[in-house]
Parts: sequence; structure tokens; C-alpha cells
Amino acid sequence: MEKPSLPKGTRDFGPVVMAKRQFILNTIRGVFQLHGFLPLETPAMENLTTLTGKYGDEGDQLLFKILNSGDYLKDVDQSKLTTKDSRLITSDISEKGLRYDLTVPFARYVVMNRHDIALPFKRYQIQPVWRADRPQKGRYREFYQCDADVVGTDSLLCEAEIILMIKSTFKALGISDYTIKINHRGILAGIAELVAANENESSLFVAIDKLDKIGAEKVKEELRTRGFAEEGLSILFEILTFKGTTQQKIEFLKTRFASSEKGKKGITDFTEVLALLNGYRASEDHVEFDIALARGLSYYTGCIFEVKINNVAIGSVSGGGRYDNLTQAFGSKEKLSGVGISFGVDRLYDALEELKLFPEEAQVSSTVLISHFDEDSKRYGLGVLQTLRDKNIASEIYPDSVKIQKQLDYANKKMIPYVIVIGSEEVKSGLLTIKNMKTGEQEKKSISEIITLINRN
Amino acid sequence: MEKPSLPKGTRDFGPVVMAKRQFILNTIRGVFQLHGFLPLETPAMENLTTLTGKYGDEGDQLLFKILNSGDYLKDVDQSKLTTKDSRLITSDISEKGLRYDLTVPFARYVVMNRHDIALPFKRYQIQPVWRADRPQKGRYREFYQCDADVVGTDSLLCEAEIILMIKSTFKALGISDYTIKINHRGILAGIAELVAANENESSLFVAIDKLDKIGAEKVKEELRTRGFAEEGLSILFEILTFKGTTQQKIEFLKTRFASSEKGKKGITDFTEVLALLNGYRASEDHVEFDIALARGLSYYTGCIFEVKINNVAIGSVSGGGRYDNLTQAFGSKEKLSGVGISFGVDRLYDALEELKLFPEEAQVSSTVLISHFDEDSKRYGLGVLQTLRDKNIASEIYPDSVKIQKQLDYANKKMIPYVIVIGSEEVKSGLLTIKNMKTGEQEKKSISEIITLINRN
Repeated sequence: MEKPSLPKGTRDFGPVVMAKRQFILNTIRGVFQLHGFLPLETPAMENLTTLTGKYGDEGDQLLFKILNSGDYLKDVDQSKLTTKDSRLITSDISEKGLRYDLTVPFARYVVMNRHDIALPFKRYQIQPVWRADRPQKGRYREFYQCDADVVGTDSLLCEAEIILMIKSTFKALGISDYTIKINHRGILAGIAELVAANENESSLFVAIDKLDKIGAEKVKEELRTRGFAEEGLSILFEILTFKGTTQQKIEFLKTRFASSEKGKKGITDFTEVLALLNGYRASEDHVEFDIALARGLSYYTGCIFEVKINNVAIGSVSGGGRYDNLTQAFGSKEKLSGVGISFGVDRLYDALEELKLFPEEAQVSSTVLISHFDEDSKRYGLGVLQTLRDKNIASEIYPDSVKIQKQLDYANKKMIPYVIVIGSEEVKSGLLTIKNMKTGEQEKKSISEIITLINRN
Repeated sequence: MEKPSLPKGTRDFGPVVMAKRQFILNTIRGVFQLHGFLPLETPAMENLTTLTGKYGDEGDQLLFKILNSGDYLKDVDQSKLTTKDSRLITSDISEKGLRYDLTVPFARYVVMNRHDIALPFKRYQIQPVWRADRPQKGRYREFYQCDADVVGTDSLLCEAEIILMIKSTFKALGISDYTIKINHRGILAGIAELVAANENESSLFVAIDKLDKIGAEKVKEELRTRGFAEEGLSILFEILTFKGTTQQKIEFLKTRFASSEKGKKGITDFTEVLALLNGYRASEDHVEFDIALARGLSYYTGCIFEVKINNVAIGSVSGGGRYDNLTQAFGSKEKLSGVGISFGVDRLYDALEELKLFPEEAQVSSTVLISHFDEDSKRYGLGVLQTLRDKNIASEIYPDSVKIQKQLDYANKKMIPYVIVIGSEEVKSGLLTIKNMKTGEQEKKSISEIITLINRN
């Protein structure tokens, strides 16, 4: 029999990794809930009519599609089959796919439940998504997304709260050296007007987005081939390379945007968000106004965010922004504006690992193992075990009667910090030997003293 | 545009339902961890070579299969396509499927990670599974399973701990009227010997399993057509209908099993499990020795369990048992015995709903909404909001400037228990109006008094 294996690009999460992942997910969940967001879960499978056409042609190619059940070929035209054209046949043999992100299912949920939802609707969603991407380092075919969105309000308070949530999350994760880059699509639109991008706005944004990765010269080259004039390019790079404080950048742009309504709106929104932060007694620490932040071709229309951990060779760990119309793709006439944030669990995991920031508590192992020399001691241990669990101390007893050393090895391998050793003497006196597995120290204590000791540490 | 819909047999879980589900899942997770079980997560997709042949022919039919990416028809034989025989082609166009349960992925994980695993290995796993079953009331195509298994030990302590975990779970869920039915495959094997079932053992178990549903007469009829003799049937029903305490049942079976090794082993194991419960100072309350419990055709070899909530028209909410050889299906030569328990979240949910047992805390809503009469009050509210969140009180502010009544409606709809109302007077005095949304009461308090009030309730 062949050795079993995992599908390409997928992973098992064993106990050690799970404990660390749960630390991240619980932290994010806690922050979302503290800020009034409520949980939503949608099914892994969605109808392909829901998914297709929402992520561009490339996205459609990357959807995992589910083969219809039963005799799926029965009603397929024989002549179609003869072409052997996979694309022609897919819709005949598959009507469901795995979700590709959490935003489209969220939009579908809102459309389907519009009458039961109290606006503004603040939902968070922490679930896996699937993409048939070529797997590579840090890119998987199944990975978790953690999204929070508020829809049904234009209030810039929501943008300020996104920044607060990012700060709370990083504080709780113990990450102190990070940057929240902020920009506004209005500011980018204003720049596009200044450089006369006209219909070429989206190529402009895509090119700007690469500035970090490929540098100014290559971006200029790309824009030249896209038909941008030298005059426009020099205005563009004067703006993109402007150095100064946030306040200086704002003043600088105000002069440039004197005749751009979109640009002015961008500046006003952005200034208001900063003022609101102040209202929360939150500082502007970590916040950086990055005129070159564009966030690709996405559907954002207002403020945009991206978070990078400094001095770690990992891309952005979080991103989001405001959009105009969540449910438009489902033909909804009501314009639901919203703003959302998404955290990348895998990248946060790698960063915390690299920075050695996972706390000791990020280990779900029992606190105590009860070990025993003989059957009598083992039976005596059951009562001890029950007492510990009654005090909510995660505990276990070695189930088999084997040498003490084997029982200690088990505790070591599972990183259980305390072992209680019970032999005939302990049964007689009621004083149990407790061994600290880190220090190797051991002492005799009553069960109530042991509970005190454990709760103190 | 067509209105979006959900695939048949799948569900969205909105905030209210999610809160209740999280209450159940967190309770079960807490009990598992308290008893030394560690978390595992496996990918939704498994190779079909891993899944196929593990669940019988019917199970294979119910697997959701994933269409290969790209030009999946390219290498399929044209002559095969011409047959239009779906079953012939499936393995050419699909090599992955969605997991059908948590046991097979667990076994695959153990085989693949055998050298890193400390035995006995105690893992729990809480994840959705998918089955292309015909959807009906209470049966879904995507549903969660919550499994805990110990493998790598024959110790009957594990059986006793399963019973303890069931008891802890039900206590934490607030369910007091339930029965843990226990039997042992050895006892069933002993009975099979007595009634000369020979090769017909599995039909015997399947028939016995239906006793509850179809009654004694129909079971007898079924067994007659399967070739069981009247003499055997009368012995069988004398045993199955024996009434008495657990001790009386044990004594009764002992006399019957005088010459059945399997039967005797069943009785010994079972008696030992009860004795161990005693060692944990746990009573036999809720535990019922049910000689007719068979748990179908499953792979169990030792003790078997099933839990029913009394006076609720819902099938068993939990079940499990001991098996001999977890990894056999993957060709592993090492015999890993284990024992496991599985909780059915959907049925527990329905039962708790019917019994009105969901606690008030099973609502993840903000505790406080801050409402405001004007822009100044709103800005003042931001500081209040921050103070509440600093005290870990989940809070939100109504983001738009609208009539107070609309803000209160929002709080009502979201079941937020407290609303702080801020107007110019409150800004001046620092005494805030706090409204209890359940009683309608409102009073003026300082922010620190409000925090005390909330933490007291």
C-alpha cells in the first residue's frame, strides 16, 4: 500500500502549531469582539454562480470546483465531450466551488439576509479559503483569513476603529515594531488627474503599487510604455518621493489638489480620521501616510490600509480599506458602503516565530501528568487527578503501568511542566512528590499545596 | 441578475446562531483540554486515495470530489469519454475530495507523523465534514464533528475518562437529564456465540441496533429471514429484554457466558471501567448498561458508548468506542488500539434550544452602545468608549449622527444590554445617562460607576 500523503499546498496543524495558531486567532477574535463585531460563518461550498466573475479571469481559474454528485456526465452533450474542451464542459459537470475569500460570501449573506440585518452591520469571519494557486513558500492552497467589516455607514469613525483594532491586535500579540501605512483612493485619483492618467488610472495604480518592489526607474519605464508623458511622470514622482511629516505631506498635497475635487476629498477624509484617533486618546504612533500605497486593482474607494512588521522579511500582514458598494456584484440596488480589515494568519505566525514572540501560554498541553509506580498508586492517582480537574487544572494520568522513566519521557515530549509521582509511600502519607520538569526540582507537598504552587506560577 | 442562494444542505451561521454554537464548541473544547487532549486540524481536501474505500461503497458515493485544476480532460481517453460512464472517468478528472469524517484524516496524520508522536497520543479535532447525502431535517451536507481519541494504549482508564468527559460536557452545557448507554463488543460477540450467529455476526448486530426503532417483532422477523433459528432467537431476546440493575445484568450475563471467552472479556472490561469510575470519585449516575446497544457495523472492538438526552425527540448526541487498529487501512503494521468519542454539535444545538438551556452569555453582542445627540457628544463618546474597552468591556459607538431613537433601535435589534446616552449636559457634567435596555431603567452615573455596575451584573 502506498504511503498516504497530503494534497499539494495543504497542511496538517499538529498540537504545537495549533496552540500557536489558536493564540493568534483568539487574540484577533477577542479584539474584533471588544470592538463590537459579531461572528459569521458561511459554508465552504458556494454555488459557482456566486463565485464566478468576482475575482477576475485569473481568479476564476483558481477556484476549486466540485464535481456534481451521481451520474454527472448523463446530461452532457456527446458532441461537447468530443471536443475535450475542459472549459466548455466544466459548467455542465460542476455547479459548486470552494470559497475563494470571505468577502464574496459575506456580500452574498448580506443580500440574502438584508431584512434581518441591523445596519450598520459589523461582522467578523475567521475561516479557511481555498485557491488552486501554484504552491510556494508561504503560499498555500488552503489558508485562513480573518476579516472584519462594517457595512451600511459612511462614518469615518469606522476607519479610525480599524486603526485602533490593528493597534490592539499587535499590542496583544506583543509586536511593537510595525507600521500601519495609510492612503486614500481619493488622493490617488487626485494624482491621476494631475498626471493626466485619464482612462489609464488603473494601470497607474498597479504600477505605483510595485514601487516598493521594483523601484522608481522600472515603474517609470512601465508607465512610459503605457503612454504616460514625461511631464506627468515628473509630477508623479515629485509627489511620490515627497519626504516629510504627515502634516507636511498633507499641506503639500493641498496645494497640488487645489483644483481636484477627488484629491481634496481624500485629504479631508484622511485628516478627519487622524483627528478622530485623537478623540479616542490614541496616538498616531505606527501610523504612516504613504502616498505610494495603492493596494492594486481592488474595489477600494476611500481610505486604504496596509500593515508591515518592520525588520522582518515578510510582506504585509494585514490590509483593508473602504469600498462603496459591497453588494453590487449581486445586483443589489441599495448602495452599501463599508470598510474592512483582513489579517493574514500564516504571515503573522511566521513573524511571531521569527521574532520569538509566542508566549509560553501559547502551548495547549496539560499542566500536570500523574505518574505512578504500581496499580495501587495509579488508582490513588485517579482521586488526585479529579481534584486537579475540579480546580480547572488541565491534567492527565499515564494510562498504562510502565516504568517511571517512560512516563517522564512522555511528559517531556508533550512539554507538560509538572509531574506528580505517586508510589506506596505517597499513598500512605498523602504527601505527593511534585517534579518541576523545567528545573528538575522535586519536593513533597500535599495536594492543596500543589494546587497553590501551580496557580501561583 | 438571479438572487444568490446557498448550495443545498449548507447553512450560514449568523451572529445569533454563531454565539450559541461557540458556546457549545468552547464547552467541548474546554473539557477536552482539561482532560489532556491536544488539538489537531487537517485540511478540508484529502487525496481520494486517502478517502476512498474507507467508508464502504455507499460512503464512496457520498464523497464530494474536486475537479482537477486546468485542462482536466486533456489526458482522458477519448474512448472512455464516449462511454459517458461517469464512474469510469471520475478518477481521471478528480484526485481530491472533501473530508467525510475526522477519523480517517486522523489515522492518516498518525501514519505520516508516527515518529514525532508521543504515545499515548490524545488528540481532539473540531472541524466541518462534508457528505453528499440527501439533505433533510437535521441532516446537512456540511456539518461539524467534535472528536477526541486516545491511541496507543489498551488501558481501560481511557474508557473511564470518556465517561468523565461526557459527564463534564453535559454538566457545563446545563443538561441534567441524559443517559450514557454503554455496552461492549465482547458482550455482543458472546451473545452471537450463544445464538450461533457464526458468519452472520454483523447482520445480528445491525438487527439488534434497530431494536429501539422497529421493535422486537420486526427484529425477530429480520433475523429469521437471515437464517437464525427460533432457539437462538429466544435465547437472544431473553438476554436483550433482561431487566435489572447493572450488577444484576452483569451477574446474569456471567452465568450465560460461562463458556464464551469473548463474552467473559466483555464483562471483565466493563466491570473494570465501572470500578475505575469509582476511583475518580465519579458516580455511576447517568450510566446505563444497555445490552442491546450495538452501534451498527462500525469498527469498534471493545466498549461502546452512546448518549441520549431524555425527553427530547432527538437521536443520540454523542457516541464512540474502542477500536483495535486505527491505522490498519493505511497498511501500517503496528497495531494502534484506541478509544474515541464524538459529539454532534447540530443535535446538541437543537436539544439546548428545545430545553431552553442556552445561557444569556451565549450571546456575543457588545455590552454597551454609546449613543449621542450631536457631533460634540459623539466626539466626547470616543473617550468613554476607549475607557470601557480598556476595561475589557465590549463596546461600540453608533457611528452616524442620527436620531437617538434609531440608535436605541439598533441596540435593541443587536440585543446590546446597556446604552450610554450622551448629550451636551452629560459632556458638561461628566455624569452619563446609562439605560438598561431590558428594564428600561435609566440613571446618571460617572464612567467609573458605570464600569462597576456592568462588572457586577
